[in-house]
Amino acid sequence: MVDWRGSIIRDLSAWGGARGIAIDWAQFADNWRAGYQPAMAPVREGKAPFRIIDVLHREILDRLLVKYGLMQLSEAEKAHINRVWHRLDPWPDAVRGLWRLKQRFTIGTLSNGNVALLVNMAKHAALPWDVVLSAELARNYKPDPSVYALAPNLLGVQPGAVMMVAAHEGDLVAAAKSGLRTAFVSRPLEFGPGKAPHPDPPGVDLAVRDFVELADRLGA
Amino acid sequence: MVDWRGSIIRDLSAWGGARGIAIDWAQFADNWRAGYQPAMAPVREGKAPFRIIDVLHREILDRLLVKYGLMQLSEAEKAHINRVWHRLDPWPDAVRGLWRLKQRFTIGTLSNGNVALLVNMAKHAALPWDVVLSAELARNYKPDPSVYALAPNLLGVQPGAVMMVAAHEGDLVAAAKSGLRTAFVSRPLEFGPGKAPHPDPPGVDLAVRDFVELADRLGA
Repeated sequence: MVDWRGSIIRDLSAWGGARGIAIDWAQFADNWRAGYQPAMAPVREGKAPFRIIDVLHREILDRLLVKYGLMQLSEAEKAHINRVWHRLDPWPDAVRGLWRLKQRFTIGTLSNGNVALLVNMAKHAALPWDVVLSAELARNYKPDPSVYALAPNLLGVQPGAVMMVAAHEGDLVAAAKSGLRTAFVSRPLEFGPGKAPHPDPPGVDLAVRDFVELADRLGA
Repeated sequence: MVDWRGSIIRDLSAWGGARGIAIDWAQFADNWRAGYQPAMAPVREGKAPFRIIDVLHREILDRLLVKYGLMQLSEAEKAHINRVWHRLDPWPDAVRGLWRLKQRFTIGTLSNGNVALLVNMAKHAALPWDVVLSAELARNYKPDPSVYALAPNLLGVQPGAVMMVAAHEGDLVAAAKSGLRTAFVSRPLEFGPGKAPHPDPPGVDLAVRDFVELADRLGA
């Protein structure tokens, strides 16, 4: 739904520029994101208690601030930077595609992001969700099956009545194992220009360029 | 938000009319609602496992169908009747007031209704929630404090940054005990014409006629 990398670069470049902080914010964003899967791993493996993504993001951020020599920032500044994940901008097709899908279907998140992050992001990006579902409600992280089970269980439908839509193959493979339908949305710029996009994964029910095409394909 | 009594009467009168079933649907609605608090009580008291409101509604309905001599209905018909709670119509001010509130605030449910019921009702009634929170997520029922705690906990804010808005004094008294702000919305027709409306309860932060006045009072 959202261009996390471009949004973080834009947001923090402007923020840093106003304060005379000139670092490579693209590299900073990539380093931050690189900590994401390792931070969730101990929770998934039962070796650490569940903490929401805001907390994991902050743990990674605090290490990054040391690396970039920015430890002297105030607590309010650090909290503001950490909340950049609540201020991500949508891809150009996202809002229009969701409004079309919403006419025919119930649309919701099913993200590892915590509820507050997803709700604030939706307000910021004008994403018109009918429901905000989060791994936080299962107190585990995708690809744990308990997270995928939230959608049919809380919506009172069979798993096959739910479609997981994602830009990441692993998310769709795990969703399919839980009986959900799957759609892959290509996001060739997710990891920045010049990076190889994910190829369309085999075995998904649908593979589309964007959410407008998804609405077309689903008759919405 | 919704006129449960009027909606049930309208929906089931039309449904029954098409099938030659002529009963007093107003009385039927009142009887159904009368079973609601007693059905939740054993869950609140820890004497029965948590079951969602759809299940409690169905248990009450099955007894009512015996009372009204409608046991012969098919399972599909019973399920359709039970889902009337997913098809409730909004009060005339609700949608307009929520759209105004949504411009300034994050708006959400915090209801004893289960998530599917609330999501389907919102689609039916065009209620533009930012987030759907339900007692189902705490696996207990209001006025248990665990339900009120969901709102600040999942939204990542202090309790005092949340306002509980309700037409029932008990709900607001319990919310205030959990540190939430409170607003009472008068719904003089909730229990039908000719019934005494709830007086404005003492001790609430705001008491308003409807959601448009609430938006006015909150500067939205």
